[in-house]
Amino acid sequence: MSQATPYPITDRNVPTRSKERAAYDRESVHAILDEGYLCHLGFVRDGAPVVLPTLYARIGERLYVHGSTGSRPLRGAGQDAGLPVCLTVTLVDGLVLARSAFHHSINYRSVVVHGTAYQVTDPKERALALDAVVDHIVPGRADDSRRADARELAATAVVRLDLTEVSAKIRTGGPNDDEADLALPYWSGVVPVTEHRGTPAPAADLDPTIALPGYLSTER
Amino acid sequence: MSQATPYPITDRNVPTRSKERAAYDRESVHAILDEGYLCHLGFVRDGAPVVLPTLYARIGERLYVHGSTGSRPLRGAGQDAGLPVCLTVTLVDGLVLARSAFHHSINYRSVVVHGTAYQVTDPKERALALDAVVDHIVPGRADDSRRADARELAATAVVRLDLTEVSAKIRTGGPNDDEADLALPYWSGVVPVTEHRGTPAPAADLDPTIALPGYLSTER
Repeated sequence: MSQATPYPITDRNVPTRSKERAAYDRESVHAILDEGYLCHLGFVRDGAPVVLPTLYARIGERLYVHGSTGSRPLRGAGQDAGLPVCLTVTLVDGLVLARSAFHHSINYRSVVVHGTAYQVTDPKERALALDAVVDHIVPGRADDSRRADARELAATAVVRLDLTEVSAKIRTGGPNDDEADLALPYWSGVVPVTEHRGTPAPAADLDPTIALPGYLSTER
Repeated sequence: MSQATPYPITDRNVPTRSKERAAYDRESVHAILDEGYLCHLGFVRDGAPVVLPTLYARIGERLYVHGSTGSRPLRGAGQDAGLPVCLTVTLVDGLVLARSAFHHSINYRSVVVHGTAYQVTDPKERALALDAVVDHIVPGRADDSRRADARELAATAVVRLDLTEVSAKIRTGGPNDDEADLALPYWSGVVPVTEHRGTPAPAADLDPTIALPGYLSTER
């Protein structure tokens, strides 16, 4: 699918609020999905919603989630009909402090994917997906680890979710105070928020002759 | 409710995986809910799951979420029967790199709340909840802002969710590699992850004689 073709707008990916913050272009959606690595996966169990945090990765127009074959949502995705899910990724960029409590907000970038998750059974696709999840967290890591053996693969469910019904929502910039509030004596502005990766701490049982690999050497 | 009484264990708050990571004590649950400020709220619309990011605050054994009266989940919570929801908060503490791809993980603390959300109509409870949401993001801020006026209050829905069916899940520590993998030549350990709040940036139209308030003066 061309990068130039946006995701289609549907009934359920149009926000009811702040429509001007919605984006459907693939570039924006992919950038958010690639910067995040933790999603919140929602599904329905016994008629009630369940939301669980999990890792994911993107390959092209498909997201992958993995987990134990015993986990409830992944078992559900193993049925022929698949499992209806909503997968949401949110990155926080700042706390927006307006003069009015009402206009307090956060700067954020989020992606919401609606669709049906299916278990992946093709061994090649499973292997690519598992590498992608590891490399998504730390690029370069999959090649520098022992890949799953047959026993581990048998215990691992890989689930795919196609990017077909997708939207991003993005808020940037300063507070949007009402004109009448601008002269109020309250500080207003934005507190930037970033995720920080600190100095890697070796495992207690790591052979001390094994150096920190290059892909971990720079903080970000 | 005494802090000493844990949340009851039910069918749906027992994890199917990694049961040893589950916690039901109020102290652990409250600490995670108070450190986070962004939740992912799941609900069911037309039979399908929806997961949206939103701000929240805790007062005692109750969580509050607010939003536009026009938003779909908040309208649903305004019905007599309320809206079945799952509210999940996840804090990431580290990336866990094991020798084996299979044992890669993250250190995290999460809370999952199952229950029914109801709109709050009592004006006093609404006011307390709105202050709590602002103060949850930046403690001390509610008193240093213009509180909502009648028009803004009329446009704001406040929703409550009681903490009755709740569980925390916590992973800490280093990689759990299999004994047979310990001699493999791969670096293993943990990359710490923290959320960082940077230097507050004043709004472009802020009166330059208004100093940064004390509650924002220290980075964290």
